[in-house]
Amino acid sequence: MTPRRISDSALRRLSHYLRFLEEFEAQGRDTVSSEELADRGGTTSAQVRKDLSHFGSFGKRGLGYPVPDLRARLARILGVGRRWGVALVGAGKLGAALYAYDGFRRRGFHVVAVFDDDPRKIGRRWGQLEVEDVARLGATVHEKGIEIGIVVTPADAAQEVAQAMVAVGITAILNFAPRKLVLPEGVTLRDVNLEIELEALCFALTHEGWEVGR
Amino acid sequence: MTPRRISDSALRRLSHYLRFLEEFEAQGRDTVSSEELADRGGTTSAQVRKDLSHFGSFGKRGLGYPVPDLRARLARILGVGRRWGVALVGAGKLGAALYAYDGFRRRGFHVVAVFDDDPRKIGRRWGQLEVEDVARLGATVHEKGIEIGIVVTPADAAQEVAQAMVAVGITAILNFAPRKLVLPEGVTLRDVNLEIELEALCFALTHEGWEVGR
Repeated sequence: MTPRRISDSALRRLSHYLRFLEEFEAQGRDTVSSEELADRGGTTSAQVRKDLSHFGSFGKRGLGYPVPDLRARLARILGVGRRWGVALVGAGKLGAALYAYDGFRRRGFHVVAVFDDDPRKIGRRWGQLEVEDVARLGATVHEKGIEIGIVVTPADAAQEVAQAMVAVGITAILNFAPRKLVLPEGVTLRDVNLEIELEALCFALTHEGWEVGR
Repeated sequence: MTPRRISDSALRRLSHYLRFLEEFEAQGRDTVSSEELADRGGTTSAQVRKDLSHFGSFGKRGLGYPVPDLRARLARILGVGRRWGVALVGAGKLGAALYAYDGFRRRGFHVVAVFDDDPRKIGRRWGQLEVEDVARLGATVHEKGIEIGIVVTPADAAQEVAQAMVAVGITAILNFAPRKLVLPEGVTLRDVNLEIELEALCFALTHEGWEVGR
């Protein structure tokens, strides 16, 4: 089977549509037009229809989309609405904030294990968890059915940690370390690089009149 | 003057090149080729040369780039290497982690003011700072010469907070709230949406064989 392809930006838009639909549903709305979704998302109705068309046909021409149905289908498409087990490696301050972050749990992402290689951190209690030795990664990932890994280590440990995750079967990694990771095909990697986001801001502040495109 | 334009991905690559150059410099390397920068960044040497060509001419054909010189010029291009004052609005757990995050200070980003509208949080000490009433945003931004704002509020407060930042002269905003913000032209906005990054991972886990493009 040829792999099907969706652009990163289309995928982000689907996540945004889901949020708009949740709001519309909370307001008791029955239907929504592609124009309304487009307005909320700063895009065009043709784009909304195109983004959805990747996944079948939705709504009836002239009637708009039924809100609860489209919301449920989008949640299913995105894979949210079920419980995902997440392992977090790097028990520092940013790791602790991510662990405590409500937004993750609300969307079904549960950090069910935390690891570090620092003996001073291993064994500490984090809420209901205990920070584990990263050497136990494989055992715990299997026991707890963990599918997603978050790398929140210093830059120079990130590649090794990500490889260890892949070696124990994790194929979806969110990387916060400021390092470009090289991982085998079939592994989905998302980078959140806070310093690079800030650098894009100061580029814009330094270069007035320049436009930074998405 | 026609605004010049750089793509988001080119700007990210420049940030990565800067990091590679810092490493090369720390290793005492004098010169680096576009091929080496390309290899480290998972791109092509033609791309490296194109990215740099936005900003003048660098290096000599066949001799590679002088490491310290290119590092310094890239830092200047990106606007790093000077001190940037940052205001953070939203004194919750994620805000606290960002405040404590070493990576920001290392790159010259200093959170010099923290705001909230919750009377229970206003007045609390955060290191050397005291959480201020968000009503004081304008006064403090002017006093401290703040140029960058970080929004780390709940979703439903984010738009109002970002507008308040713009109203007091901030034109560069990093938004962590899971809400699409609408801001006037001339304001540079970067979004870090942790839930949406995780949703992209679970999309990939749910749709084996699909490719998510950048």
